[in-house]
Amino acid sequence: MTRIPRIGIDAMGGDFGPNPVAEGAALALREWPGRFRLTLVGDDAEIRAALKRAHVDPAQLDIVHAAGRVPMGARAVAAARTAGTSLGTLVQCHKDGSLDGIFSAGNTGAVVASALLGLGRLEGVSRPALAAFFPNPSHGTVVLDVGANAEVKVPWLVQFAHMGSCYARYLFNFENPRVGLLSIGEEESKGNQLVQEVLPLLKGARHVNFIGPVEGRDLFKGTCDVIVTDGFTGNVLLKTAEGAASFLGRSVRREVEKDPLAMFGALFLKGALRRLRSRIDWQEYGAAPLLGVNGVCFIGHGASGPRAFRSAIDTLTTFIEQRVNEHIREEIRADHDSAA
Amino acid sequence: MTRIPRIGIDAMGGDFGPNPVAEGAALALREWPGRFRLTLVGDDAEIRAALKRAHVDPAQLDIVHAAGRVPMGARAVAAARTAGTSLGTLVQCHKDGSLDGIFSAGNTGAVVASALLGLGRLEGVSRPALAAFFPNPSHGTVVLDVGANAEVKVPWLVQFAHMGSCYARYLFNFENPRVGLLSIGEEESKGNQLVQEVLPLLKGARHVNFIGPVEGRDLFKGTCDVIVTDGFTGNVLLKTAEGAASFLGRSVRREVEKDPLAMFGALFLKGALRRLRSRIDWQEYGAAPLLGVNGVCFIGHGASGPRAFRSAIDTLTTFIEQRVNEHIREEIRADHDSAA
Repeated sequence: MTRIPRIGIDAMGGDFGPNPVAEGAALALREWPGRFRLTLVGDDAEIRAALKRAHVDPAQLDIVHAAGRVPMGARAVAAARTAGTSLGTLVQCHKDGSLDGIFSAGNTGAVVASALLGLGRLEGVSRPALAAFFPNPSHGTVVLDVGANAEVKVPWLVQFAHMGSCYARYLFNFENPRVGLLSIGEEESKGNQLVQEVLPLLKGARHVNFIGPVEGRDLFKGTCDVIVTDGFTGNVLLKTAEGAASFLGRSVRREVEKDPLAMFGALFLKGALRRLRSRIDWQEYGAAPLLGVNGVCFIGHGASGPRAFRSAIDTLTTFIEQRVNEHIREEIRADHDSAA
Repeated sequence: MTRIPRIGIDAMGGDFGPNPVAEGAALALREWPGRFRLTLVGDDAEIRAALKRAHVDPAQLDIVHAAGRVPMGARAVAAARTAGTSLGTLVQCHKDGSLDGIFSAGNTGAVVASALLGLGRLEGVSRPALAAFFPNPSHGTVVLDVGANAEVKVPWLVQFAHMGSCYARYLFNFENPRVGLLSIGEEESKGNQLVQEVLPLLKGARHVNFIGPVEGRDLFKGTCDVIVTDGFTGNVLLKTAEGAASFLGRSVRREVEKDPLAMFGALFLKGALRRLRSRIDWQEYGAAPLLGVNGVCFIGHGASGPRAFRSAIDTLTTFIEQRVNEHIREEIRADHDSAA
């Protein structure tokens, strides 16, 4: 691919409408001029107003008008089948080849369903999986599936291992990503039936650097680069980790605010805490790819702010530049061949 | 029950041997004199040496000698069947009626297996479940099962709801505990097959104050008082929450240590952080009951320190004083009757 990646964003998808999208676009256009071409999809008038507020010249990007939008509470498949929404139009633009990758911070279920219905699956992939990245002491860990498949079949998890390895390798520069299977102890005898059935398949997978069962706490230790699990457990893990972080942050703040001495001391910590926050903030890593769809589709938090949209544009561009989907297709094919 | 509760502790069970046990006993004996009678089970000489170091007069408690111990890595059922271990002797003392409740910070699988094999189940209970308590802004939340049953059947979860409600009510003073079912969204259409099948049963359970599906992050919000889930997902949740807390703590410390200004400021925060820590520290709440066994059996972290043993003695005593098992038996019977 020699042309620059064309990235489309659902401008109506997040909790805060087009404003943070426009501000994120402004940040990205300033930081990486000429690296990508941006298209915002949604209500034309609202997008133009948001661009104006963010001091972005509309000539720097494209706008595709779509009058409808998917409500956050909408049921996934019904929403995916509604015509004229910003999300539906975005997926359509990707499907017809006018965009190379798309991002929405909207209703996760609706984005997953729209991508599955609209784009289909990569050759050889049984089920796409949503992959989240968690920063930790040894850079970070990719976890999948974090919510696309509440119920899984055993062989899908092996494909998740392949897809997660490609993503870790080409997006986060892990050379030979170590893959762990989420369980409830490091001993192979532990875990549920799914774990017991997947274990021998992962051990036998020739192109997976499998290190064995891992636990929830390994996510924060950096003992492996990819954690494979079903979409139910992965989603619980994701939301528990986020909940714990925000609870601890709030608790510290509340405790400090009760104590004038601590309030004074906290002034000196601002720089250190800001540095830590930028290192572990989900706004930096919040864009999660739906790996295995026949296309490039990333999903963000509803509460995405300008920095989250900026990072998403960066991540999508890298994903397309690195041709991650081609690598996934090759790995899945090699796995089929070696199994045959 | 008019006599004071007789509490037994596996003195060899934790990572650090009898020393923290003796120190924890010293704290508890000083704080609640006459409220319980303590028995330490394990190597007589080692226990006496530890008591001496902790300045505890051996006449204040009983010692039951057991020469063997269960290694942390031992397989659960094999360990439970080994004769002469401190754990096996402890369970035996409970079974023969010379103790009213037991606590071990040893190999969790071995404690669960020993309790199941040695004590059996409470009348009407299909499967015992391990219940953990997580502190949060609205006091805290009981989660079960956090690891006794990696694989569950649908009706067991309804029993978990009953048992968890009794524990929340009588140990933590929740008047009419709100019970949530762990899922991946608040909408009833979300979740895996288990969730879909359990939902109508929990909604129909007359003695359960069921509020619907909850997510991992609800654990830290205090939106419900009891969270019910299978032992695989619950264990992932437990270890993820613990891992997140320790990761954030370490990250803040590391960031502060890099910055002399922050180091200076941190001096003023010590009091506030110490208060927070005592409020959310697992050593205060780490003793988890195996609810549904025909007895009182609590399990602690391997890394339990003196404060953890002290809290465990307090929690077990309260559990026995409050006759939680009688309440569980009644609830399970009422549920059977209303279902019949």
